[in-house]
Order: sequence, then C-alpha cells, then structure tokens
Amino acid sequence: MSTMKLTLLTDFYELTMMQGYFKTGRNPKVVFDAFYRSNPDGGGYAICAGLEQVIDYVKNLTFDQVDIDYLRSTGAFDEDFLEYLLKFRFSGDIWAVPEGTVVFPKEPLVKVTAPIMEAQLMETAILNIINHQSLIATKAARVCYAAQGGAVMEFGLRRAQGPDAGTYGARAAMIGGCAGTSNVLTGQLFHVPVLGTHAHSWIMSFPSEFEAFCTYARLYPDNCTLLVDTYDTLRSGVPNAIKTFRAMADEGITLKKYGIRLDSGDLAYMSKKARAMLDEAGFTDATITASSDLDEYLIQSLMAQRAAINSWGVGTNLITSKDTPAFGGVYKLAAIEDENGNLIPKIKLSDNTEKITNPWSKRVYSSYDTPIHKIRADLICLDDEQYDSGQDLILFDPKETWKKTKLHGGTYEMRELLRPVFIGGECVYESPSVMEIRDVCTREKESLWDETKRFVNPHDMYVDLSDKLFKIRAELLEEMSLKQLG
Amino acid sequence: MSTMKLTLLTDFYELTMMQGYFKTGRNPKVVFDAFYRSNPDGGGYAICAGLEQVIDYVKNLTFDQVDIDYLRSTGAFDEDFLEYLLKFRFSGDIWAVPEGTVVFPKEPLVKVTAPIMEAQLMETAILNIINHQSLIATKAARVCYAAQGGAVMEFGLRRAQGPDAGTYGARAAMIGGCAGTSNVLTGQLFHVPVLGTHAHSWIMSFPSEFEAFCTYARLYPDNCTLLVDTYDTLRSGVPNAIKTFRAMADEGITLKKYGIRLDSGDLAYMSKKARAMLDEAGFTDATITASSDLDEYLIQSLMAQRAAINSWGVGTNLITSKDTPAFGGVYKLAAIEDENGNLIPKIKLSDNTEKITNPWSKRVYSSYDTPIHKIRADLICLDDEQYDSGQDLILFDPKETWKKTKLHGGTYEMRELLRPVFIGGECVYESPSVMEIRDVCTREKESLWDETKRFVNPHDMYVDLSDKLFKIRAELLEEMSLKQLG
Repeated sequence: MSTMKLTLLTDFYELTMMQGYFKTGRNPKVVFDAFYRSNPDGGGYAICAGLEQVIDYVKNLTFDQVDIDYLRSTGAFDEDFLEYLLKFRFSGDIWAVPEGTVVFPKEPLVKVTAPIMEAQLMETAILNIINHQSLIATKAARVCYAAQGGAVMEFGLRRAQGPDAGTYGARAAMIGGCAGTSNVLTGQLFHVPVLGTHAHSWIMSFPSEFEAFCTYARLYPDNCTLLVDTYDTLRSGVPNAIKTFRAMADEGITLKKYGIRLDSGDLAYMSKKARAMLDEAGFTDATITASSDLDEYLIQSLMAQRAAINSWGVGTNLITSKDTPAFGGVYKLAAIEDENGNLIPKIKLSDNTEKITNPWSKRVYSSYDTPIHKIRADLICLDDEQYDSGQDLILFDPKETWKKTKLHGGTYEMRELLRPVFIGGECVYESPSVMEIRDVCTREKESLWDETKRFVNPHDMYVDLSDKLFKIRAELLEEMSLKQLG
Repeated sequence: MSTMKLTLLTDFYELTMMQGYFKTGRNPKVVFDAFYRSNPDGGGYAICAGLEQVIDYVKNLTFDQVDIDYLRSTGAFDEDFLEYLLKFRFSGDIWAVPEGTVVFPKEPLVKVTAPIMEAQLMETAILNIINHQSLIATKAARVCYAAQGGAVMEFGLRRAQGPDAGTYGARAAMIGGCAGTSNVLTGQLFHVPVLGTHAHSWIMSFPSEFEAFCTYARLYPDNCTLLVDTYDTLRSGVPNAIKTFRAMADEGITLKKYGIRLDSGDLAYMSKKARAMLDEAGFTDATITASSDLDEYLIQSLMAQRAAINSWGVGTNLITSKDTPAFGGVYKLAAIEDENGNLIPKIKLSDNTEKITNPWSKRVYSSYDTPIHKIRADLICLDDEQYDSGQDLILFDPKETWKKTKLHGGTYEMRELLRPVFIGGECVYESPSVMEIRDVCTREKESLWDETKRFVNPHDMYVDLSDKLFKIRAELLEEMSLKQLG
C-alpha cells in the first residue's frame, strides 16, 4: 500500500458532497472524530492500529490526470471542481492515538481538523484502514492472551480477504502480539519475523513420509518442524518424526530447534500422546506446534486441558477476526466554524440512542494507578482542559451520572492519548517500526487487569466525560430535541 | 492489484519447500487443485470469482533484485537457489472455472499442472484471491436473491478488511449481482457504476436540514436521494424532504430520480410511514432506499413485512461476509510424475474424514435439464473421460453409493466448467469485463432452483464422481490405509 495511491479509495458521496461545498462556496473549518462504538468479540478493550498506513494515504492524497479523466467520465462533476481537485492538497491537522495503544469505545482514535472539503474526502480511507488493522490487532491480542505466553504465529494469508487483508492484517497481528507471520510480503515490508514449516504436499511428493521428513531435516536443521498428519498422526507421522530425529543424530546433524506440527484431529489428545512418544524416545526438547482452525476460545480450552502444545499457528479465525469481522469505526462531525469564524459544537441525534455522538474538539486521557501502572479509567474532555494529577479528580459515568469515582491526588497518573500527526498539512509524526509498536502494545496490555482481558463478561472500562463536555452535550441534546418539537 | 507485483504474497514455507525441491534436484510435474469444502453461510452453492486477478498475479510472477535481497536477509536461502529465483517464470498450465459460474464443494475451481517448484509457489496467492472474491460474490448473490429484484448497492468500503478487500470485494459484489458500488476506485478499475447519496455530516454542516436538502437537490437533480435520519426521521427528515421536493418544483427544477434514504430505526415501520407521507404529498414516484446493518436475512424479513423499500444499501455484512468471513478454499496435490515420467494419482488422508481429497487430474461437468436449463447435478471425472448427452448417464452419490440417478439421453445437456487459462506458461484466456461476468452470473443463478438458493436447509446439489474416479479413489484409500497398518 505504501507504493499505491489510494486517492480514489473513497465512497462516491464524499466527492459529490465535496463538490457541493465547492459549488456553494462553503468550506468552513470542521472537526471530525473517528471512533468506534463497541469492542469486537464482546471484549473489554481494543488495540488501535493502522496509523502508519493512514499517514501514507494522506501524504499521497493527490488527484492525477487519470483520476480526473475518470471522474469526468462519471458525468457527475463540473470542470471547475475537477480543476480544483487537480491542485488538491491536505492542509489541516490530524491528531491520532499511537498504534498499539489500548483503547475503548467512544474515544476519538483519529481527529481531523481541516476545511470540510478536505476532512470529508478522507473519511472512507481513514475508516477502512483503522477499522481493519485495529480489528486484527485486537483479535491477535485476545489470541495471545489465551496462549499465556506461548508463541502465536499468524498463518492466515490464504484465507484473508484479499492481498492487503493478508499483508496489513499480518502487520496488525504482529502489533497485537504474534511472534511471527508466514506472510513473506509482510516480512519484507515491515521487517518482522517470517516463519513456517512445510505442507502436506511436501510429504506427498516423496515416496515415503520418512524420506520426506529426512530430506527436510537435512535442509533445515536450524528450524525443523515436521508436519505429522498427512497420513495418520500417531501411527505414521509421530513415529516417522522420531525415526527422523534419530537418523539425524546418527548422521551427525544437530537439529537446533526441532519438533512436530499437529494440523488435524483432537489436538488435546494428540498432543499428549505425541508428547509421551517424543519424551519416551528421549526428545524432551522437541516442540509441539498446533494449527487447525484455532481461535482464542479453542486455545484457552486446550490450555485448560493441559494440552502439550508449545506454540500455535493461527490462520483463518485471526486474519478474518471470524466472530466479529468488522470493527465498526465511524467518522463523525463534532464541530464546525460559523460565519464569524467561531468553532461551534455539533451533535448527531439518531433514532438509535447509542449512535448519538460526543460534540466538540476533544482530548482523551488515560488514568493509571501508581505505581502499579494499571488503567483506572479513561476521560474524554474538551481540548482546553488540563489535569494535574497532584489534585483529586472526580469522574462520573456519562450514562448513570450518580456513579462517581474519586482519584486521590498523587495516587494516579494521567496520559494524553492523542498525538499530533499532521499540523497545517505537514506530517510531524514518525511511525515507530512494527516491532517497536509491538513492544508498546505489550506494555499497554500489561496495564489492563485480567478482568478486562477475560473473554466472558469482561469488566467494562470506565470512559467518562469531563464536566464541561457532559454539560455541552446535554445542552445540545436538549436544544436539538426542542427544535424537533417545532 | 493489477499494478502491484505480488510475488512475495506467499507463505514462507512455499519458498523453503521450493528450495528443498531445488536442492534435492526433484522437480516433477504435478497437478494441484484449488477447491473448497462447504458453501459459505450454510448455503446451497457458491459463485466463483477472482480469476482475472489470478491471471494478473501469474503474469507478474517474477523475482526482482529487491525481492532476492530480502530473501537473502532471512538467512534461509542459498545463493544458487536465489539465482534460480531471479530467472523464475511460470511454465505450466492453468485451467479454471470462469468467473460468475455457480460452483459446489469439492469441484476444482483452479487446476495447476506444472513442475512442483512452480505449482507450489503459487498456492497462497491463488487461494487468497479466489477465496476472497468467491466469498463476496456468493454473499452478494444471496443478498440480491433476498431483494427479489430490488437494486442492491454495495456500500461497505469503510468496513472492509483493508483497501483491497474494499476494492476487489466491490468487484466481486458486482459479479454476484449488485447494481453499483460506492467505491470510486472499483468504478475506475473495473468500469462499474458508482453511486451514493450524502452523509449525516452534510446535513450537520448546514444551519438547517431543509437548507441542506435544498442545496443537495439543486446540485444533483438527476439523482437526488436525501438521507432523512440525522435528527428525527419521521418528524424532521421526511417532512423536510417533502418540503424540498415541493420547493424544487416551485423553482422549476425537475428531479429525475429522487427519494429518501433511511439509515436507522425500525426500517419496516419507518418505510411504511415514510411511503404514506410521500404518497400523500403526491410524490408517489419517490424511491425509498434503506441502509443500516442489512444482510440477506434482514432484507428477506423486511420483504416479508412488506416494507416499502425500493433499493438497498448493504455495507458491513456484505463486504466482510459477516456470518462466514472466509471461503475455506484449499490447494491440494492430486497427481505427480514418477521417475518414469508417468503421472500417478495422489490422495491426502486425514484424521478428519472430510479432508480426504480427490486424486488425479480431473474435469468438472455441469448437467442441465433441457430445455429449462436448470442444473441437475455436477460430475467430477478424469481428464480423459468424455460424455455424450445423447446417451443415458447414471450418476451416484460418492458417499452413499446406492443413491443413484439416471439422466435420460436427449433430456439433458453437459457443460465442462474448467477452461484453459495458461498453456505452457502463456496466457490463452481473456477475461470478460466485470459487467459481462455479472451477466454470466445472472444466467448461472437462474439455472439454480429456489430449493438450492433458499437460506434455511437448502437442497444440496449432487456433485458425483465418475465410476473411474471413484474406483481410483477407493483403491488409493485402501492402499494407504493398509500401508499405515505396516
């Protein structure tokens, strides 16, 4: 994607609205928030990802003659507008939550402050990228949590929803905690470990399983994981793997990392049987890798059954986030400049109450208990609000406002989540490497209690509104509601 | 994707296996089949898609110096193999089912006949592309079936799993039957209709909803669909839309296609109320478009409730195939050349019975009742088998072989599904345009009975094996099974 111009990766209506603003001479400064409404998989949190690709997108957001010719061919656009597009450059500000950060519903992940024509155009691509990568990073964090420190390898490319889904999905999976990916393109683009074993076809292409194993072991003694289920796991695969490990010892070949991979059958039973066979043969340091339709629930179940599995190859269910395959992020207008140049707050009402938005240009703070650095609550407030963690802070639930909690001065720290990424159209942010983001994410996940990370009925993290924001929101709601009554 | 080289869009193990064959001087000709095991969403069929992108992939399948340098940096590859890769070109044959075709489980969708080093390398990308586009084309066919002829618009880009998922997903959705997409890039790349309305932010950026509507109507009188749920659908949106349609008449502006879009709330109730309000105001030709988390089940329910909806904007659930977000296609070795140059059949056993493969180089036929052209059954047979539809044909179920059916000579026609795409490394196939493929798919869907297209307990289409293929498979199973016993 970094080499691809994604200017036309947009909904048609962004361009027709843009032309609408152009034709009516209205291009006020606005604030748009990208946020999401509920955590994937009914979980307690999400991991934000995709910012590096959003930055690439914005940097390359120009219309070339081919784009203009295509847009002209739709018959929907006038020449003066097309001329404007040819000179289009983003001139606004973007603030965003760094990749790898733990986030919660309603928090702005990306905030765009720009003339409405620019801010509107970017909606679709920003959502597409952030929605996708945050979804997969979150799923990976869940899968890695289930594996309790066991290595999780991302193996899903063949089942991903197209090339980008495989490639940027693997990037996001690394951020969420995977130890490596099978996707070579992701390795090349993002300098992350690539790994793999071999396929059933390797075995089938040899006269015998044993010969196939020996050939593989001689070729890859440093990392020799043998797939044992091509014919019969316990009667053929594991015995042949053991014979192979012995043969290599006889040949004087030292296998550095070696073991087997189970890819079908009852993984709990198979892994325990295989472990016993390997141990009995003296190969106690042989690893057992499992694959075959794994997800966080199955891994948690296998761990509970004390399956003898050291590492996990997770494919389809991770790379598609199978149970919740969309993140649901939205991009909503929060403020607009009036005729006098004053920024005024905006709210979107809806027949679905949970779709009502938080108005005005906002900041997000995370508060942590010191010194254990566990998240206490998040706070959404107005841009001009500052907090002093030496002072007591009273937080309240925005839905049930009588639910209050007090952070005692000196016992908590506050961290602002949104960072400047573009200022006046210039990029002011340098993305860390994916492996650096992965480290950030590890610390972020450690700041969560198990109660928030568990899969069933996780504790909902408090995301409170500041007094000021709460009041403005309530006033706007009241005002809009009275307006509807006429 | 057409401009992107996807050579490294592959699992690492494809390359390490390739090197294994290279190092051991073994590069026999093989046959690989790409097929799938069960229909998405528990449906009765699938729509095959993605071939055009597979062709692009194969045509651009070369390693450049940057790729080689990256592979060298992994430490897994020797110089002689890297030198071989620099000269790599595909030299084999590919046969494939044309896009838009109705297909069923176990049928080869793509068949690759090539030296094993070449055929193995292509596994991941072929599966990634075919899996993704077939998944979305199938989902689109289901959604369009539910809409009973009402136009379905693909609106999912912002929720797609990355840029390609949005762009090629929209391509596949068009093949499956959508009337248009909001994705401008798909419109540009594939010459399909792009369309859209406007966003809530358009309304919110104006002092009033009425002013926002009027401005939009003046700008886009040819296609003026007003989004009515920004504040309150029935108390504000629809009355303001009606006021706008009247105002345009007063201003002498003719709205060619016009109407409203409902995006939240109870769509059955809202649409009936809105229809009554529009009709009462004399706007009986105003269309009502619905969006908001639609899928085939919700559309079928709304149709059953006689919701007054003319067209459907379907986003997340279509572009991610939400209930079944992976197609599950696999790529399995079916035959291999022995030392004497004879092609011999290969089978993969498994502890999971349904994972056992069909051996040997195969063809697929669809049989149709004449003259109604409804599918009767599909037949998988060996490459050298020919059928004469003037003769009686007895088919039998490969699992329950006593289940037989007789096609009487002269009452059926047979069509071969696999077409030559590459022969000796040269592309011999020209992809039709997406709109042409969409027409093909329309005829394909018409060849299915409603019993196969329904959502609950659809009739499973018979996919039978020829006598010859059945016998070879049974012999191989027997032989392999005895081998395991030792």
